[in-house]
Amino acid sequence: MPGNSFGNVFKLTTFGESHGVAIGGVVDGCPSGLKLDFDAIQDELNRRKPGQSEIVTQRKEPDTVEFLSGIFEGVTTGTPIGFIIKNTNQKSKDYSHIKDMYRPSHADYTYEKKYGIRDYRGGGRSSARETACRVVAGAIAKQVLNNIKINAYTSSVGDIFLEKPYQDLDFSKTESNAVRCPDYEIADKMISKIKEIKKQGDTIGGTVTCILQNVPLGLGEPVFDKLHADLGKAMLSINAVKGFEYGSGFCGAKMRGSEHNDLFNEDGTTKTNLSGGIQGGISNGMDIYFRVAFKPVATIIQKQDALDSSGNIVEMQGKGRHDPCVVPRAIPIVEAMAALVLADFYLMNKIYK
Amino acid sequence: MPGNSFGNVFKLTTFGESHGVAIGGVVDGCPSGLKLDFDAIQDELNRRKPGQSEIVTQRKEPDTVEFLSGIFEGVTTGTPIGFIIKNTNQKSKDYSHIKDMYRPSHADYTYEKKYGIRDYRGGGRSSARETACRVVAGAIAKQVLNNIKINAYTSSVGDIFLEKPYQDLDFSKTESNAVRCPDYEIADKMISKIKEIKKQGDTIGGTVTCILQNVPLGLGEPVFDKLHADLGKAMLSINAVKGFEYGSGFCGAKMRGSEHNDLFNEDGTTKTNLSGGIQGGISNGMDIYFRVAFKPVATIIQKQDALDSSGNIVEMQGKGRHDPCVVPRAIPIVEAMAALVLADFYLMNKIYK
Amino acid sequence: MPGNSFGNVFKLTTFGESHGVAIGGVVDGCPSGLKLDFDAIQDELNRRKPGQSEIVTQRKEPDTVEFLSGIFEGVTTGTPIGFIIKNTNQKSKDYSHIKDMYRPSHADYTYEKKYGIRDYRGGGRSSARETACRVVAGAIAKQVLNNIKINAYTSSVGDIFLEKPYQDLDFSKTESNAVRCPDYEIADKMISKIKEIKKQGDTIGGTVTCILQNVPLGLGEPVFDKLHADLGKAMLSINAVKGFEYGSGFCGAKMRGSEHNDLFNEDGTTKTNLSGGIQGGISNGMDIYFRVAFKPVATIIQKQDALDSSGNIVEMQGKGRHDPCVVPRAIPIVEAMAALVLADFYLMNKIYK
Amino acid sequence: MPGNSFGNVFKLTTFGESHGVAIGGVVDGCPSGLKLDFDAIQDELNRRKPGQSEIVTQRKEPDTVEFLSGIFEGVTTGTPIGFIIKNTNQKSKDYSHIKDMYRPSHADYTYEKKYGIRDYRGGGRSSARETACRVVAGAIAKQVLNNIKINAYTSSVGDIFLEKPYQDLDFSKTESNAVRCPDYEIADKMISKIKEIKKQGDTIGGTVTCILQNVPLGLGEPVFDKLHADLGKAMLSINAVKGFEYGSGFCGAKMRGSEHNDLFNEDGTTKTNLSGGIQGGISNGMDIYFRVAFKPVATIIQKQDALDSSGNIVEMQGKGRHDPCVVPRAIPIVEAMAALVLADFYLMNKIYK
Repeated sequence: MPGNSFGNVFKLTTFGESHGVAIGGVVDGCPSGLKLDFDAIQDELNRRKPGQSEIVTQRKEPDTVEFLSGIFEGVTTGTPIGFIIKNTNQKSKDYSHIKDMYRPSHADYTYEKKYGIRDYRGGGRSSARETACRVVAGAIAKQVLNNIKINAYTSSVGDIFLEKPYQDLDFSKTESNAVRCPDYEIADKMISKIKEIKKQGDTIGGTVTCILQNVPLGLGEPVFDKLHADLGKAMLSINAVKGFEYGSGFCGAKMRGSEHNDLFNEDGTTKTNLSGGIQGGISNGMDIYFRVAFKPVATIIQKQDALDSSGNIVEMQGKGRHDPCVVPRAIPIVEAMAALVLADFYLMNKIYK
Repeated sequence: MPGNSFGNVFKLTTFGESHGVAIGGVVDGCPSGLKLDFDAIQDELNRRKPGQSEIVTQRKEPDTVEFLSGIFEGVTTGTPIGFIIKNTNQKSKDYSHIKDMYRPSHADYTYEKKYGIRDYRGGGRSSARETACRVVAGAIAKQVLNNIKINAYTSSVGDIFLEKPYQDLDFSKTESNAVRCPDYEIADKMISKIKEIKKQGDTIGGTVTCILQNVPLGLGEPVFDKLHADLGKAMLSINAVKGFEYGSGFCGAKMRGSEHNDLFNEDGTTKTNLSGGIQGGISNGMDIYFRVAFKPVATIIQKQDALDSSGNIVEMQGKGRHDPCVVPRAIPIVEAMAALVLADFYLMNKIYK
Repeated sequence: MPGNSFGNVFKLTTFGESHGVAIGGVVDGCPSGLKLDFDAIQDELNRRKPGQSEIVTQRKEPDTVEFLSGIFEGVTTGTPIGFIIKNTNQKSKDYSHIKDMYRPSHADYTYEKKYGIRDYRGGGRSSARETACRVVAGAIAKQVLNNIKINAYTSSVGDIFLEKPYQDLDFSKTESNAVRCPDYEIADKMISKIKEIKKQGDTIGGTVTCILQNVPLGLGEPVFDKLHADLGKAMLSINAVKGFEYGSGFCGAKMRGSEHNDLFNEDGTTKTNLSGGIQGGISNGMDIYFRVAFKPVATIIQKQDALDSSGNIVEMQGKGRHDPCVVPRAIPIVEAMAALVLADFYLMNKIYK
Repeated sequence: MPGNSFGNVFKLTTFGESHGVAIGGVVDGCPSGLKLDFDAIQDELNRRKPGQSEIVTQRKEPDTVEFLSGIFEGVTTGTPIGFIIKNTNQKSKDYSHIKDMYRPSHADYTYEKKYGIRDYRGGGRSSARETACRVVAGAIAKQVLNNIKINAYTSSVGDIFLEKPYQDLDFSKTESNAVRCPDYEIADKMISKIKEIKKQGDTIGGTVTCILQNVPLGLGEPVFDKLHADLGKAMLSINAVKGFEYGSGFCGAKMRGSEHNDLFNEDGTTKTNLSGGIQGGISNGMDIYFRVAFKPVATIIQKQDALDSSGNIVEMQGKGRHDPCVVPRAIPIVEAMAALVLADFYLMNKIYK
């Protein structure tokens, strides 16, 4: 199956290349009768867009979403919601130097070999620009799930970690700093780190933690479509992601059953939550939390060896306007993908009641 | 969508509860003309079955697969392959004590609340017994992929880690010890650890590492169905899994781009492989490797508080025959799920050529 | 995609060949908490089974369904319902004469060419025996839809037509005669016709009409998954079907808009119902009715030319126990497929409310 | 699932309402490396567009397709092809009179009841305007299938039938007359009939016959996704379609097996072709032919009773620019849907080889 659709009953299909006419998508399965808050959608896009601060890429793209269908007088009609975001800042000439070149740790080589052709401008379809469409759809999904709270934040940059448990954080602080870490002290360290890395023409990885609260009990469709399995797939489908863990995660693999088991309270909640809000693939009503690992951006502003299409190793100099660390801009993308998964399972859960 | 199918063009649907008449499945989309090696299929099942060694559950189940269709004179016909494994050792009375009880960190509570009813015997559908069907289908998938090498092994039990890179391991040693770790020294430590944990009536978590070799370039269907995204979902759908990372994984999130980028050789291979054999969601021909975290088994042979269906906290004593550590028996399951993902993408990749 | 699954949220996957060990299926997505009437399921199977009367094939097969999963103490649990029907009357030697032969207007040739191999015994997978699994699943679907009335009947055999509008028929008469026509006079003519045809070693086609009553308003998912489009696909997927029409059907193509339009009553019902209960692909609450054309069975008990696998035309003599007219036994199959479509759309319609 | 996608591996998703900003679609799964003939695509759209002749609606819409993605330097890249067609001639005020009114035999009432809201302008999503997107995708599919010939034509208007077998027709004549009937004498009668009907402010139904030639042997995925079952669904999903038959169709239901069976030639072709080129759901290499019934357009330019949203029967006068007979403009739509089905099965058939 071609892989450009996500979800079963709340389904997003995206299209578009970084430097084509436009990127866009179709949300099929959004319930009718939802009065959309368009500002909230554009706000999410603005969180993701380039040029917001000095620690992200300096490309300027307005990233304005235009809705083409599925909405009548501001209200969803149950028909598919088509939308586009025009590509206005396509400096295609920026990329002519990579036309016949495969950059290391980019998708240039695999796209070329798989498809026999690639739109090399700005990474084409493999560009993270595509995630803007996910953010639009996720912003709609958030409105479907208006009681569920979805909060992602930067939990590490390089070796700087936010160690505090999420319960001790004030999520309202996340948006007020450039790195989107809700602890100002750690945020400052992260920002300094990214600036330092940027000065060196280098890039750095990091992790995003995401907390889902007020998720109703019962979401998830075992045995294959377990809630955490689809959350994992959603996150792993985001550019640059290398790992996903939920609840106790990799730490849980070191623990004993007697430590790890979450004992019940009489109301069905649990005293601890190492399970991460999901049992047997089904939400149990407790907070869901997970962590996502992002590798450092592959484009560095340094000399590097690349492969050309004739099989020669050639030196190339990274150019253009790139993110020194992808994590700050990944926050709204992680939230959007989480929202898409939750909306899908939330609607599905109505079927079998 | 009901969640009991996996895959798109090589598709497995499973059914069955731990203590029902039988478990089974349907493999739809297996290419015709494949002469099946039935012994190889049963061998995989035997690797997963209980009672193999003193560090796994002592239940005795023959786990004999019976094929009902899709095969004619030993050869696949292109029609769906139906199969069953009869449940022969159903000591249902073992479970009468949990009829009205929700065990901590089990799926009892979420299944009951989601569906309003549950087959409580042996965990019913949420039992890992279901994974036997995945092993059958995975064993068929392995035969479809006869040039691809799939090797999983135990890489940690509790805090005992196999630190060696996989390139230094001899996979032929994996099967020759009870814990399925290809380094005998570490294996011995792991086995001692599990025995000690078992004596205490406790359980312990661990990790499995899996290596996929000779995977052809071009597998994966971006942007959502990236090869690693579907591998991640596959692994996260296995009982007790809490995390997945591939390539550099969570470690990659601490690195710089200049360290992390995999420079090319002239033939398109790369000098390093922090990418883990996948770029932009598409296999690049290098080894694919990933790591899966398993939590400790929730059933412990100790007194523990549980919740009953009337909302009372009641003390319960774990009974029955359970695994002190799930990891050794998870090895063939991880391999099977990897094989299912690869077979699916391998066949899909024929479409767009 | 491999084509052995039907439905989206109430999904049936079938497997099995005519002369293999067993045929069977998996119903995934049946709501939990449904107390199944097993006699009703077996009754539907009995309506389809061979050997019921002198105008159908004289094969004797008990066609007993065994449920393997998804049901606990007689109630559905929301987990997949696996079932098998053992093949007990496999006279495989009956078919040795067609091993290397492609019978005219059978699927022998296309299966062999598509798959490179075929289970030639009794038609293998292409045998209508597979429809027994549809009847089992359809009987469960009927129980999900307990307020909806589904009545199919024989509306023609050869050139003998039941011309009366369905409103003038008493559906309780359908089951009381061998041809399943609810008008005894016409039924007698049809039965005589079939006996005469049978005596000649020949076969004859016919049509089935099906009436769906009390279907709630709102079923159907335009623009592609219109209710009648999926009913059409369902019917056309039944062996020997050559045509489908609903509402005014092919007659409607001769009419004028001023005659064809169904004027409303004040309560939203319509004075006429040429639309056949569906507008824009969505049920409107009126009766849904459609007609299905079945070709004559291809196996005739006469000498006929066939093609052998070496490319020679060879004379063959039809043998075995075959139906002279497929229509009487197709009634429960048509109803079952209609029930599967309705259950699927009925459950889906809960999502977007 | 939301019903706005069609196909499995060559998949079209459409969006858009008659009087919204634009309609459009996404073709996901088009093979890479296809040099597109854009004029051929626009030509197909021009065949469908309004205002072509005096027997179709006089609306003037340029219906210009704009491609947004998936194509690089004129060649498909294997990534999704997004496209839009702007709605330029939206006379929304034409429809203000139906804002609170449900027109007879339109989808107004069912959309309103299903979704609780509808875009009433020009029928909104239920308008046949949506089919322009199918024509774009079908035109791409035709280029994927460049050896397959797809020819549809008008085979009846009201009671005027083209009785000649398709073998006696010259398909090059189809496009040279307004009614798209490849027999000029019959075409003239049809055109006169439509003019007469139009003068009366009435509408008339008709049938379209479609011939698929050079279809390779082996397309179709039984048991549910039989080639003719998906062709049937495709046709029934087109606005105003009431019936589908292929091969001998409803006539076949009157025949005997001894007349109906298609005897083989030594090369595997058949002497007759009552089967319509498909056996057991799989193409056999012979011509595929089918017939589709269209009801008369529901909008008539006469006084008619409608229902208003308060439950009153009110007289309404049809206005606007409507087709007196939908069939001439349906020809390219039937061909497009046939092409989508064939492209899907053609690509799928590569998987299991």
